[in-house]
Amino acid sequence: MCRSRIDRLRLLFSELRADALIISHLPNIQYLCGFSGSAGILVVEPWRSILFTDSRYTFQARDEVSGAQIRIAKRGLLRAVGEELRELSRRRTRFSVAYSPDHLTVAQKGALQVAAGNRLRWVPDKNAVEKLRAVKDRDELERMREAARVISDVFRGILGGVRPGIRELSLAAKIEYDIKRRGGSGPSFETIVASGPRSAWAHARPTAKVLRKSELVVLDQGAILRGYCSDMTRTVFLGRASVRVRDMYKAVLEAQQVAKAAIRPGARAGDVDQAARDALRRHRLAKYFTHSVGHGLGLEVHEMPRLGRGETTILREGMVLTVEPGVYIERLGGIRIEDDVVVEANGCADLTTAPRDFLEL
Amino acid sequence: MCRSRIDRLRLLFSELRADALIISHLPNIQYLCGFSGSAGILVVEPWRSILFTDSRYTFQARDEVSGAQIRIAKRGLLRAVGEELRELSRRRTRFSVAYSPDHLTVAQKGALQVAAGNRLRWVPDKNAVEKLRAVKDRDELERMREAARVISDVFRGILGGVRPGIRELSLAAKIEYDIKRRGGSGPSFETIVASGPRSAWAHARPTAKVLRKSELVVLDQGAILRGYCSDMTRTVFLGRASVRVRDMYKAVLEAQQVAKAAIRPGARAGDVDQAARDALRRHRLAKYFTHSVGHGLGLEVHEMPRLGRGETTILREGMVLTVEPGVYIERLGGIRIEDDVVVEANGCADLTTAPRDFLEL
Repeated sequence: MCRSRIDRLRLLFSELRADALIISHLPNIQYLCGFSGSAGILVVEPWRSILFTDSRYTFQARDEVSGAQIRIAKRGLLRAVGEELRELSRRRTRFSVAYSPDHLTVAQKGALQVAAGNRLRWVPDKNAVEKLRAVKDRDELERMREAARVISDVFRGILGGVRPGIRELSLAAKIEYDIKRRGGSGPSFETIVASGPRSAWAHARPTAKVLRKSELVVLDQGAILRGYCSDMTRTVFLGRASVRVRDMYKAVLEAQQVAKAAIRPGARAGDVDQAARDALRRHRLAKYFTHSVGHGLGLEVHEMPRLGRGETTILREGMVLTVEPGVYIERLGGIRIEDDVVVEANGCADLTTAPRDFLEL
Repeated sequence: MCRSRIDRLRLLFSELRADALIISHLPNIQYLCGFSGSAGILVVEPWRSILFTDSRYTFQARDEVSGAQIRIAKRGLLRAVGEELRELSRRRTRFSVAYSPDHLTVAQKGALQVAAGNRLRWVPDKNAVEKLRAVKDRDELERMREAARVISDVFRGILGGVRPGIRELSLAAKIEYDIKRRGGSGPSFETIVASGPRSAWAHARPTAKVLRKSELVVLDQGAILRGYCSDMTRTVFLGRASVRVRDMYKAVLEAQQVAKAAIRPGARAGDVDQAARDALRRHRLAKYFTHSVGHGLGLEVHEMPRLGRGETTILREGMVLTVEPGVYIERLGGIRIEDDVVVEANGCADLTTAPRDFLEL
């Protein structure tokens, strides 16, 4: 399978006006050839591919890599890759190499250029690998379905412990422990448990704050399973909620349903965001919705496409997306509901299995 | 304290031939002004400093930052910083800004340059902040001593669970849960539990593999405590080890002791690595020692200096280093022993308190 991914990438050589491509972003490397180590650069040439890594990963690379040769760099990765590029460029009068300006530091690019010499032309890769990654194949979808199921199960499992008196940090630690206990390799991001007024911070990190009665609690969590991420948010209330809070919850849930209904092959990413925004506007809550409605996910927890205002990306079958409208009102608190969905032929299907009813605990 | 760190940085302006410095690496920002958010750039000017961040961090920045003004960027961090640099450069005929080529991507540098205009001269910062950070002050040493103690306690606590039948992943989950239970904010890197032949992978990630009798188990773990990292490795054997394995363990421990003995103010980093290598050579194991003997640690788990072959950095009092020789033999397995030490006036002192004896469990 890895070989076919690299081959699909090669089809883009002419579009990029490149004779070769260097891949420095680790999730892209893992996607293309299977290598999961923390140091590597993949060089995709017209007739072969080479993974450069260092001696710490000799055995692991042999075990994991398919579709690429392995080279252990003795005197630095960048130098070894640069020298390979120099060799390649010797054989042709004009040689272009595509690279990612987003994933190479100024220093790394400088070191590559020194080693590669000045016969090369450098061209941006236009996120070629990220675009391939956006559409998942069957094996990936299976892993993502499992990752979404695991985090749903974790949520159901810890619900009994969401009660006044427990600290946000303890709850987050329980969630992360449970992810591993259920076979995940870890959380896909730092688990968010934000209670009371802190639930109105969209990116709150859990603190030593104790959960109290009559508070909203936002729980945002994800698992990594066989390399793939899930990402799910639920908001619960401790005790009996006011009519205002219940109406807010209903409005957010409606916004999520409307956004999901807008997802299908051919739809524009920005229109999904707009659908949620319009639904919240009908409840006069649009101004409290301070982020975009979702994002792609896969090997990374944030991937292409972004489901944000004005985004023109066209959705395609096999993309996996989060749908996560939220409203955040200072002092009162925040409510966010987030599911993972896969784009299918006629719409989208939920990967997340946890219930979405308003829970008063 | 933050102000004095920024002032010490300003003393380097002339050495760098810079009129201002932009800091984009988050741990450097935290070190200099206290901000711990996930989006920020600090601009250090001759008479003031400004932290640029976004609206998600308005409250947090107010809470954490000292020694710098706060500016909330409305239309992108890079654009706001670039515009500030453009303003600064208007006032002088030649204006130089130092930046870190290691911590700015090609795309980010491009965006800064577009916003800043072409009156600026860009000069590399020569790791100025990293060099300051390498020598710890009293408050930092206290945190690091505590972080090292916590991970030592965690190790002692989970030892009873290291037995045949348990999965690598479960053990790693227990370790990370225990880190939080003992007051750490989390692991300082993904915990390594590698058993049997997998112990020969110096950087193995834990898997669903079950620990079996007569296997080596490498446990590499660290805690973050009040921002600072510890990093510790122990290797144990399940059952009675062969003479060969015991001799290997003794050789690695000897290499560690010899390396520690080479650490003192004025010593060269490369000589510490060489000392360990020479000790292993006497046991014909040098060729299985495939990484460098250690690295600095602090706010990050890998910092300056690197204790590797040929490194010319001179060690100074107050530096905190790992000392972690290891041997990795395919099929047989790997043995690594790692402690954190602080460079003191007459040598070095262990921060790690866990025992180093060979444990047959």
